[in-house]
Amino acid sequence: MTTITRADIGLDTVAELAAQLRVDAIRASTSAGSGHPTSSMSAADLLAVLVARHLRYDWDHPDDPRNDHLIYSKGHASPLAYSVFKAVGVVGDEELIHGYRRFGQRLQGHPTPILPWVDVATGSLGQGLPDGVGVALAGKYLDREPYRVWVLCGDSEMAEGSIWEALDKASHYRLSNLIAIVDVNRLGQRGETDLGWDLDAYAARADAFGARVIAVDGHDLAAVDDALTEATDPGDAPTVILAKTVKGKGFSEIENQNGWHGKPLPPDMARRAIAELGGERDLTLRGPRPSGDGGRRGAAPAGSPAPVAYELGAKVATRKAYGDALVALGASDPRVVALDGEVSNSTYADEFAEAYPGRYFEMYIAEQQMVAAATGLAVRGYKPFASTFAAFFTRAHDFIRMGAISGVDLRLAGSHAGVEIGADGPSQMALEDLAMFRAVHGSTVLCPADGTSAVALTNAMAANPGISYLRTTRGAYPVLYHDGETFPIGGAKLLRHSDRDRVTLVGTGVTLHACLAAAELLATTGIQARVIDAYSIKPLDMETLATAAGATGGRIVVAEDHHPEGGLGSAVIDGLVTSGVAELHVAHLAVREMPGSGTGPELMAWAGIDADHIAAAARALLA
Amino acid sequence: MTTITRADIGLDTVAELAAQLRVDAIRASTSAGSGHPTSSMSAADLLAVLVARHLRYDWDHPDDPRNDHLIYSKGHASPLAYSVFKAVGVVGDEELIHGYRRFGQRLQGHPTPILPWVDVATGSLGQGLPDGVGVALAGKYLDREPYRVWVLCGDSEMAEGSIWEALDKASHYRLSNLIAIVDVNRLGQRGETDLGWDLDAYAARADAFGARVIAVDGHDLAAVDDALTEATDPGDAPTVILAKTVKGKGFSEIENQNGWHGKPLPPDMARRAIAELGGERDLTLRGPRPSGDGGRRGAAPAGSPAPVAYELGAKVATRKAYGDALVALGASDPRVVALDGEVSNSTYADEFAEAYPGRYFEMYIAEQQMVAAATGLAVRGYKPFASTFAAFFTRAHDFIRMGAISGVDLRLAGSHAGVEIGADGPSQMALEDLAMFRAVHGSTVLCPADGTSAVALTNAMAANPGISYLRTTRGAYPVLYHDGETFPIGGAKLLRHSDRDRVTLVGTGVTLHACLAAAELLATTGIQARVIDAYSIKPLDMETLATAAGATGGRIVVAEDHHPEGGLGSAVIDGLVTSGVAELHVAHLAVREMPGSGTGPELMAWAGIDADHIAAAARALLA
Repeated sequence: MTTITRADIGLDTVAELAAQLRVDAIRASTSAGSGHPTSSMSAADLLAVLVARHLRYDWDHPDDPRNDHLIYSKGHASPLAYSVFKAVGVVGDEELIHGYRRFGQRLQGHPTPILPWVDVATGSLGQGLPDGVGVALAGKYLDREPYRVWVLCGDSEMAEGSIWEALDKASHYRLSNLIAIVDVNRLGQRGETDLGWDLDAYAARADAFGARVIAVDGHDLAAVDDALTEATDPGDAPTVILAKTVKGKGFSEIENQNGWHGKPLPPDMARRAIAELGGERDLTLRGPRPSGDGGRRGAAPAGSPAPVAYELGAKVATRKAYGDALVALGASDPRVVALDGEVSNSTYADEFAEAYPGRYFEMYIAEQQMVAAATGLAVRGYKPFASTFAAFFTRAHDFIRMGAISGVDLRLAGSHAGVEIGADGPSQMALEDLAMFRAVHGSTVLCPADGTSAVALTNAMAANPGISYLRTTRGAYPVLYHDGETFPIGGAKLLRHSDRDRVTLVGTGVTLHACLAAAELLATTGIQARVIDAYSIKPLDMETLATAAGATGGRIVVAEDHHPEGGLGSAVIDGLVTSGVAELHVAHLAVREMPGSGTGPELMAWAGIDADHIAAAARALLA
Repeated sequence: MTTITRADIGLDTVAELAAQLRVDAIRASTSAGSGHPTSSMSAADLLAVLVARHLRYDWDHPDDPRNDHLIYSKGHASPLAYSVFKAVGVVGDEELIHGYRRFGQRLQGHPTPILPWVDVATGSLGQGLPDGVGVALAGKYLDREPYRVWVLCGDSEMAEGSIWEALDKASHYRLSNLIAIVDVNRLGQRGETDLGWDLDAYAARADAFGARVIAVDGHDLAAVDDALTEATDPGDAPTVILAKTVKGKGFSEIENQNGWHGKPLPPDMARRAIAELGGERDLTLRGPRPSGDGGRRGAAPAGSPAPVAYELGAKVATRKAYGDALVALGASDPRVVALDGEVSNSTYADEFAEAYPGRYFEMYIAEQQMVAAATGLAVRGYKPFASTFAAFFTRAHDFIRMGAISGVDLRLAGSHAGVEIGADGPSQMALEDLAMFRAVHGSTVLCPADGTSAVALTNAMAANPGISYLRTTRGAYPVLYHDGETFPIGGAKLLRHSDRDRVTLVGTGVTLHACLAAAELLATTGIQARVIDAYSIKPLDMETLATAAGATGGRIVVAEDHHPEGGLGSAVIDGLVTSGVAELHVAHLAVREMPGSGTGPELMAWAGIDADHIAAAARALLA
């Protein structure tokens, strides 16, 4: 075995490395019986030059803050990624060949951060570059380290709009530390890509979006080396290297042929391919090590945020409380950063932007990029809070899903949810957000009803793992809780109860106020109702709910400003049934028709989720 | 009242119209107390010239197939849209001023197709242009009518990647019938846009994406008129007109000032603005009428699709059955069209593409545009079927949600769902799709377990209103049903039952096969189990489920290849509880942890949704 560790590995050695990467990509995928060898072979020369001569990375210390970052936006090139890991000596040949894509193993079909050298999960195309924008924002504006963010993109994924959101933001924020290498191998899964080998077309687009563009023959090692050098020249813009490559490069039987996407070579073909590539190799080498002083800026340990208090009964929109809490959090924890999708004056993220302009990133109307940037910032240890109208998080659903796979901690705040918003109409009304966020693995879904709880839950999100979602109200409602009241994630509040409760009313956010009013209505006719503030929808406080169910004969009215599927009602019913509550009589009030415009109260009455309807449902359960 | 109807309305009259549009936009929004007058005023000159002199539209017959189309991608300019409707005499002044944004009225905060002159709902930015691509595809390739598709875009929404997906596809398909007019008023909601008034930057981008670009002073009526004329010159590319405009144009107190987005003028300011604009007007005029012969091509009535049959017990992937059924449908109904996101050889949409290349639209890897194009095709009366991996429909969640508001009929087929797919890993595993689609208003969610039912349900979708979703398997499983068996939407199949059933097993798709195997296992120990194929998850066959619950002591095991929230288990439990089933003992088996790679069977065992786990859960319920 030859081990080389130096910054000036010669191109003859790089050529050997490239051949090894191809051979190993073939071996791993043929052994696994699945995977993408041809998509790996097209990019092998690019990666060989990058890893041997340009990527500044301490492979023994992947968490060294000075390290460059390398993201495989074309995550299906995992055989290449893992072959690189073998070549630098962090993954053994045995694991590469016999672990790849196997159950219980870490070399999964697409890279995930289970591996310490992987920043983010990829495999849903068009996400690695947007994620890289977030890492590069951290590098340039927060860490202020000279590390670079290298992103290997496929040409097919250039059809995703998110790629252009990423380049738009990368040039807007002058991310000269971001280098996209596009493997233009002409062939997608089912045939030729939209633009084929028209590098001029790609170049015009990337140039128009503000990138420095370098076109290169992706199999000319010297030219690639020059391109990577040029990409790291000081500048004021991100770089896009357009590398013309050949899919399956290195094995003449399949080079540049359609029909070989995502297919391992059968063993006999693999043997011929490996022979043509000069046989197996066992080269280990490492390229340049990172520079910079490694001092993480803004990483001081967090203190407690200053209290934000509202007077009981004062009318406060929970979106305003979110903004207030975020400012306090920002003062106590320099790792807190905020992003918004051009509606910060509605979500109140503008309060943070004004207080900490250096830690606020305006993402304009690009929700996919907003969540991806938050993901990249989280990779670097920051605590991103990203906000927009709750409805528009649906735009970033795939990014939120992938964020969960990446294991990053994101805090997402959606304002203007449900019919409560009134006149703007259904396009602006989130009525699916609770279902979407609940189904994300490991997520937390919060919906405070007042300013006090909104502040407490914003603070709680700062320390919460995984994807946390806070739904806030457009309208201002009375403060219900004293300053100092605690709101643990997974808890609920019993706002009204007695020994004579005959029915339980469960609300969240705006419907909690309707439940309280309904309880008053019921009390006038002698019916005592228990009222639960389900501010934590996931996890849900099953103990409080089961106790209430038991105390009120299983009679429960759940009201939510959301479509009936997958939201609070679903959480309550599923939770009670699967926790074994025997007797249940549930009225589930939700928005069952398509709303139009109106005032919030008109629409809540129309939807049947206001106090009158809650009281009527309770009476019906008692009839 | 002056009524003018002719194609050559003079620019002096157009100027009067523009003033009226501004005045009416102010009046409507001030009266409503909300809305976006300033965003309407910037575009008023553009719309006045367009409507008076270029839009070929029979306002009395909005469904005339020869009509041009006009989509407000910047849907918040609804005061402008509705003021245009008044100016052409289809909406009265009373409705405009006193109906706008009011409860129960049709002039909603953002346009929806409740209005006969509105094609699609807008208001979530970056969707109108992608929808317009679909309408233009229909015009050029299917209707073969000379109508044009005019789309008014905001400048803020140019930051959405979906806009660039749209231009990419518009140029790829040479949609010279598509004309985007971008109202570059420089100001977004919270401040200046990313690119401000940098028309050159916009021009470079649009040009690079293949559009014919025309830059114009958006308040110079003659220049705008020339630009619109030029835009309709014969050509081979879509046109993007970049109109430099002033937000709030026409009222000197607020022109080009930040802080006036989405705010109606207070009454006193409104009075001054109307005075400055020359007072109220009551001009009614109509511009050119449509041309073309109006003969709809491809609109022949549908016959019945030829039968597609599989042998009982033969192993068939339901994705393959989808492709087979789609081909048969295509033969019987010329309105059936198909789209795919560059994975047609996985979804089997390629069978349709091969059989009917003229009715297949490759959308490459751009799922947002794929759903939007389907929406636009549906606007023109076609029956779009759009397919990709189930996981990647999350990318288009906002478009699906808006499709429901638009009231279009879309058929979406997602393959490769759940851990069943095996080695590719979590990025490719839809585990949230059922929750996402169930929460869409008016949706239908289907998940066939075998080839016969997959064919039947694909056929059923063709006639089904709203958003229909079909989840198909990657793997091939035995055909369970005889050819000719019927599968009504909202039904379920009792695959195994007896008088001695002690537990009910409910599965869908791949887990139905696991339920059948579990029933065999249970039978070996003397336990009879009822097995239900819940192929229709929404609507769900509550009668069959309630009967089974009653017959088996409320003991139900539900197994699904999906996260536990919002999917089949949730549908079953919610349905049984809210339909009043008293006694329930439910075991809900779902994918509760983050999967990795492996084989499908390994991962189903790991997740606890295979036959062994289902049988064990049944035994535990009986213990």
